[in-house]
Amino acid sequence: MKILVLNCGSSSIKFELFDMTNEKRLTTGIVEKVGMKGSFLKLTKPDGEKVIFEGEILDHQIGVEYILGIISSEKHGCVKSLDEIQAVGHRVVHGGEYFSGSVFLNDEIIGVLEKCSELAPLHNPANLQGIYAVKALLPEIPQAGIFDTAFHQTMPAKAFMYGIPYSLYKKYQIRRYGFHGTSHRYVHKRACEILNVDVKTKKIITCHLGNGASIAAICNGISVDTSMGFTPVEGLTMGTRTGDLDIGAITYIMDKEEIGAETTNILINKFSGMLGVTGISSDMREIEAKADEGNERAKLGLEMYAYRVKKYIGSYAAAMGGVDILVFTGGIGENAVNTRKDICEDMEFMGLIFDNGKNNVRAKETVISGDNSRVTAIIVPTNEELVIAQDTYEIVKNLK
Amino acid sequence: MKILVLNCGSSSIKFELFDMTNEKRLTTGIVEKVGMKGSFLKLTKPDGEKVIFEGEILDHQIGVEYILGIISSEKHGCVKSLDEIQAVGHRVVHGGEYFSGSVFLNDEIIGVLEKCSELAPLHNPANLQGIYAVKALLPEIPQAGIFDTAFHQTMPAKAFMYGIPYSLYKKYQIRRYGFHGTSHRYVHKRACEILNVDVKTKKIITCHLGNGASIAAICNGISVDTSMGFTPVEGLTMGTRTGDLDIGAITYIMDKEEIGAETTNILINKFSGMLGVTGISSDMREIEAKADEGNERAKLGLEMYAYRVKKYIGSYAAAMGGVDILVFTGGIGENAVNTRKDICEDMEFMGLIFDNGKNNVRAKETVISGDNSRVTAIIVPTNEELVIAQDTYEIVKNLK
Repeated sequence: MKILVLNCGSSSIKFELFDMTNEKRLTTGIVEKVGMKGSFLKLTKPDGEKVIFEGEILDHQIGVEYILGIISSEKHGCVKSLDEIQAVGHRVVHGGEYFSGSVFLNDEIIGVLEKCSELAPLHNPANLQGIYAVKALLPEIPQAGIFDTAFHQTMPAKAFMYGIPYSLYKKYQIRRYGFHGTSHRYVHKRACEILNVDVKTKKIITCHLGNGASIAAICNGISVDTSMGFTPVEGLTMGTRTGDLDIGAITYIMDKEEIGAETTNILINKFSGMLGVTGISSDMREIEAKADEGNERAKLGLEMYAYRVKKYIGSYAAAMGGVDILVFTGGIGENAVNTRKDICEDMEFMGLIFDNGKNNVRAKETVISGDNSRVTAIIVPTNEELVIAQDTYEIVKNLK
Repeated sequence: MKILVLNCGSSSIKFELFDMTNEKRLTTGIVEKVGMKGSFLKLTKPDGEKVIFEGEILDHQIGVEYILGIISSEKHGCVKSLDEIQAVGHRVVHGGEYFSGSVFLNDEIIGVLEKCSELAPLHNPANLQGIYAVKALLPEIPQAGIFDTAFHQTMPAKAFMYGIPYSLYKKYQIRRYGFHGTSHRYVHKRACEILNVDVKTKKIITCHLGNGASIAAICNGISVDTSMGFTPVEGLTMGTRTGDLDIGAITYIMDKEEIGAETTNILINKFSGMLGVTGISSDMREIEAKADEGNERAKLGLEMYAYRVKKYIGSYAAAMGGVDILVFTGGIGENAVNTRKDICEDMEFMGLIFDNGKNNVRAKETVISGDNSRVTAIIVPTNEELVIAQDTYEIVKNLK
């Protein structure tokens, strides 16, 4: 049973092939610059060897053709024939209020997805391109959609509603959706497996800290709140996204700079966050290096970053009436030793005793709180692709 | 030593006269509909008797003339002559980054205030009108400015900076300022007086919950964070203001509804918050009444309201590494028994044990946490006008 996982962006297609008999990743790669000059496919073989294939990849369908060709090729492939692929699982960013779980992609469901594009105009259309491509190239193979938003559909109204006129919620479905659902779902479960505790009785806060970043409150296995909102721009300070910001400041900026909604979206999504504050980079490692050299704005950026995560942890502890497990994941969550320290220090009031010694670790499943800590803090490297493969596997299995 | 306190809005002037020998309020009132049809002055005498004077009050200067006339009138007045007024204290909404304390209003300072109008175009110009009026009518009397923002100027950069390009901070001074400073300042100090503890060693969270609402983290007497931001629209869900909202949702609404920054500001300031969510009213009492009748949106509004306050309390506890005292003030904070309960329940994880019995009280200095609670929760009715009078008194005293 082999499952192909696709994550289509507007000009890229990430792919992974899993063997579900042992959940092993057989190959992984990315198609870049779809529809642009200089497009190519980069394959990473299980032994780490990287191979690049340049080509004129005009659209997503040609991109998927390249992927299928390469994974079934004699020299670089890992399947003898495409018949070995039993299903394709797609990451779909926005499922609106329609999807609270992963789904088999039939024509009716694809129609609903098309409706959701309105809510995520930058993401869903690209996800759909991948679905159309597979449908055209491998019409017999079942496809599944795994949503970034689905896991958070359990949030209560008090957490997902905004203080705007109710009519705007009804008219445009403007509410908190949250994203990174597959990651929050994977790491909170995996943390409970590692700790050998029952996920159904635990209050968990999961910090997905990558270039995009969000945090979730998960009570007894159910997402009850999360920091990303109607769009992924809300919440934590991110690589290039503002995170939380007074909306009165945005209308002020629009007025002063004489910019409209479209330009503002670019400003708040691409030129803000850590990049905007530090003026250095959106990459935490580069910012840390500059801070070590004494750069004041780099130091400020790091302080702001950790401070906001810390405040969200307190906020979600209050939302759930406490916390049992605090999970760190994502590129920064897994690797940024000092940022984790800044976040977790001085949290004894809520039962978290941090262990600086244990914390000195990167990208490894590790408990980083003290033995006498009431709250267990733990690093769990995320694995969103595996979740997509697993969900797809479950859906396909049930089709038979 | 009598001090007149003025709080000028764009079409209203609130006034209070204090005798600073005993800090007693001698009279209070409001001029309404300045520059509009049907303008009037409403006086409330110390015995509670209300008197209304109608008149053509074309501008703030005429309004102040009415006030001076009435407080020195034989029938309704409380001073024999205006000579008894030794100073006038003005509430000024925005002091930008210029003022971290109250100031004597000389021409130079008034010039700086005029600069701050850019940051608070709805408020500061009206405050200035009051200052000009007194200057014209009582040129010999010293005036002082007491700012809503000043108390929060102690916030560290990690709390006041936003995740926007740094250039926008430099260019437009876009940062968190916070408001309600006189109230947060008064109630946190008063709480320590009541509890007989040293304000310099306490971690305090003050919840000013009125039609406008904000919450502050005060560590050792210093404001270290607050929920209102660049404008008063950020933070808690308010009577008619959104509070926190994904800025991506705002650009989406602007795009869909085809509205610009100005209309959006009206939407987020005047038609959102509790009014927008419930469709009933901005008044908590009316919403509570409807919720009691089973109205679902009224119930949702109340849940959202309390939930967001609760989350901010957790957030600020994390910011300070714990909390010793939790203060409730403002119309809702002082009176809404059920809202206080919803906010304070299930907070044992951070050391707050709530006492439902003690909580059944309105607008009275009362401890509402249990005797064994590590965190002391307390109601402290606010008194912003007294702070303005006290600060003015101090400034005038030092002039001599």
